[in-house]
Amino acid sequence: MAYAAVMGYGTVGAGVVQVLTMNREIIARRTGEEIDIRYVLDLREFPGSPVEKILTHDFSDILNDPEVSVVVETMGGLKPAYEFTKQLLLAGKSVCTSNKELVAEHGVELMKIARENNVNYLFEASCGGGIPIIRVLNSSLTAERIEEVTGILNGTTNYILTSMTEQGKDFGQALAEAQEKGYAELHPEADVEGWDACRKIAILSSLAYGKHVPYGMIRTEGITSVDKTDIAYAEKIGCRIKLLATSRREKEGIWALVTPMMIGKENPLTAVDGVMNAVMVKGNAVGTTMYYGSGAGSLPTASAVVGDVIDCVKHPGKTIRNDYSGELQELLPADEIARPFFVRYTGTPEEAEKTFGKISDVVALPDHPEEIGFLTGMIAEKTFRELAGGDPRVKRWFRRGKNEEAEE
Amino acid sequence: MAYAAVMGYGTVGAGVVQVLTMNREIIARRTGEEIDIRYVLDLREFPGSPVEKILTHDFSDILNDPEVSVVVETMGGLKPAYEFTKQLLLAGKSVCTSNKELVAEHGVELMKIARENNVNYLFEASCGGGIPIIRVLNSSLTAERIEEVTGILNGTTNYILTSMTEQGKDFGQALAEAQEKGYAELHPEADVEGWDACRKIAILSSLAYGKHVPYGMIRTEGITSVDKTDIAYAEKIGCRIKLLATSRREKEGIWALVTPMMIGKENPLTAVDGVMNAVMVKGNAVGTTMYYGSGAGSLPTASAVVGDVIDCVKHPGKTIRNDYSGELQELLPADEIARPFFVRYTGTPEEAEKTFGKISDVVALPDHPEEIGFLTGMIAEKTFRELAGGDPRVKRWFRRGKNEEAEE
Repeated sequence: MAYAAVMGYGTVGAGVVQVLTMNREIIARRTGEEIDIRYVLDLREFPGSPVEKILTHDFSDILNDPEVSVVVETMGGLKPAYEFTKQLLLAGKSVCTSNKELVAEHGVELMKIARENNVNYLFEASCGGGIPIIRVLNSSLTAERIEEVTGILNGTTNYILTSMTEQGKDFGQALAEAQEKGYAELHPEADVEGWDACRKIAILSSLAYGKHVPYGMIRTEGITSVDKTDIAYAEKIGCRIKLLATSRREKEGIWALVTPMMIGKENPLTAVDGVMNAVMVKGNAVGTTMYYGSGAGSLPTASAVVGDVIDCVKHPGKTIRNDYSGELQELLPADEIARPFFVRYTGTPEEAEKTFGKISDVVALPDHPEEIGFLTGMIAEKTFRELAGGDPRVKRWFRRGKNEEAEE
Repeated sequence: MAYAAVMGYGTVGAGVVQVLTMNREIIARRTGEEIDIRYVLDLREFPGSPVEKILTHDFSDILNDPEVSVVVETMGGLKPAYEFTKQLLLAGKSVCTSNKELVAEHGVELMKIARENNVNYLFEASCGGGIPIIRVLNSSLTAERIEEVTGILNGTTNYILTSMTEQGKDFGQALAEAQEKGYAELHPEADVEGWDACRKIAILSSLAYGKHVPYGMIRTEGITSVDKTDIAYAEKIGCRIKLLATSRREKEGIWALVTPMMIGKENPLTAVDGVMNAVMVKGNAVGTTMYYGSGAGSLPTASAVVGDVIDCVKHPGKTIRNDYSGELQELLPADEIARPFFVRYTGTPEEAEKTFGKISDVVALPDHPEEIGFLTGMIAEKTFRELAGGDPRVKRWFRRGKNEEAEE
């Protein structure tokens, strides 16, 4: 019998208790022993709930119980999660978390402490909810030099963009609807400004390339300025606008970016709609792979946390190896990357070609006779910004995901 | 330094040598030590090739070298792969393979021998090529009660069906083209009759549900009888015909089936085209997840084999746990499953409803005025077969993948 504790009985924490209970037998078979929850730590009371008898308000109950070997941290935020996690690891207990803020901010230090104490700090649930993307990078694609990681990593924004595309809603309406349905928070900034996706791509990139990518270094643009007209143009050129969190290895180094991007049917992420998440990983041997599933929600996220708990119980006294070193990953400036750009423009195609060189996919919308839309060729973003910035005919622009087939 | 050997220097074996060579440093970093290939076993000579100096024709060179701890088996077939693998495991060497025939036929016995000798028999490359689906089932979705595994597991047939759909080719033309391009073999039976997909779903189902599913028990239908008209009807009702290998947990037990099926856009497998493979896995907590990538090819398959080699080197003297017991999984008769059926029919919709009850999606093709197509409601296959079998107006029929949204 292995003993666990859960810190934070919110959506995910309650899911962890539920998954460990409902799949108790099958988990015991796969783990080799049963896993019992001895404590649930929360400031609140839950009278009448199944955890009433194991509820504690005192962290030291968990810290000082020598039989508790694995602790689930589903409190979220940095305080007191950081301090608690550190103390638990130092006390020789493994910690499994869904807390992406904490992993992105202090993951390197916490993993180091875990190693020094022969325990684990695992965070499968921190990126992509139920999608086992962390294990794919840590344990499956180990023979690969990873070349690119690109994901739809935030369900809220994907839901909003999908409903703008499919139902012609504008951003405000779509956000309000997402809030009503519980897919967006009352204060939705972390999602709609791209900060959540940014932390996740920082974590995934660190694992993929082996050095620490600080999330603060990643240029991050959200979806608040995407409007109905942009969506209509995207459809006209056979694309969708998706909030992509992406990083890529170039000859010169690694760059990373969070941005609404136009992608077409050459990209398997284009079909990922609603609250679903997906991550595309490219390796130099395996080529393109993709992983799809629920990026949030109580049970899917809890499933990932419990998978980590099982791994801890299966590896007592042993730190599961990963490729996340403390060394800092320098990032290339994202604006040195060349790609096509989609431009909304109030001049003629001929004028546009004078500025941008050869253009393609020139389209017009009936209700916007004053402008055209088009795609440029491959231009370094820096150059594109210089050309577009000084030109009052450029109304708006988007990055276009590189066309794989054309490129390779 | 860890020493490995490769048995069989064909497409996959050569890929294994290439991946271990080109990603040598990154693999060493992830593994904790370098991996060196000491022998390549093949009956042929490869003068001038990079493996010339490590080539052997004598299996006992590998068997008797105490420093070789991991052996790659990419010979294919049962003879002599089975005998070689058994001897190696008994000699305390781990074996990693892409040989689905051998895993499906003798996997249970070979895993047992591996356990008894504290080594590993790993087969990530046996299903889905570079898609890390075996590890997903063994190590990631460990908190789940798996409810369904459904895959497009054969690239040849998916290529043929895609080219029939997109280019209006008939089966013979599409097969000939696939053979020209090297996507189909000269003797394509194992692919087009569904036998390859059958072995793969047997392996995946065994891991998913924890008991041995013998491939011979799985009803298997190939794509040789699918014609252009069927494809045209599928498009008319918003579907694609895909060769699905599927198994599912019902209240009463597990069933499995390989069959061309009509699936629509509610199913993430519908968009998987060409030689790509994908596997959908549903769990009772995580819901629907999907894994996509190259199902074949030298480097993608080799990448999966090398990932297994790395795991063996990282776990010396330890058998990595999985949930594949030797116990036999009884299968439910596939024809007790209820689902909608698509029917090509030479009567009227009214006549059809008299036989099958309420029908929907009644369509007609201009070049087939003598018949209609329609979908039945949910009918147990056994009942459907009784109704359709005695009715000369039923020309052909297909299973329609259950509509998730309607169902859940």
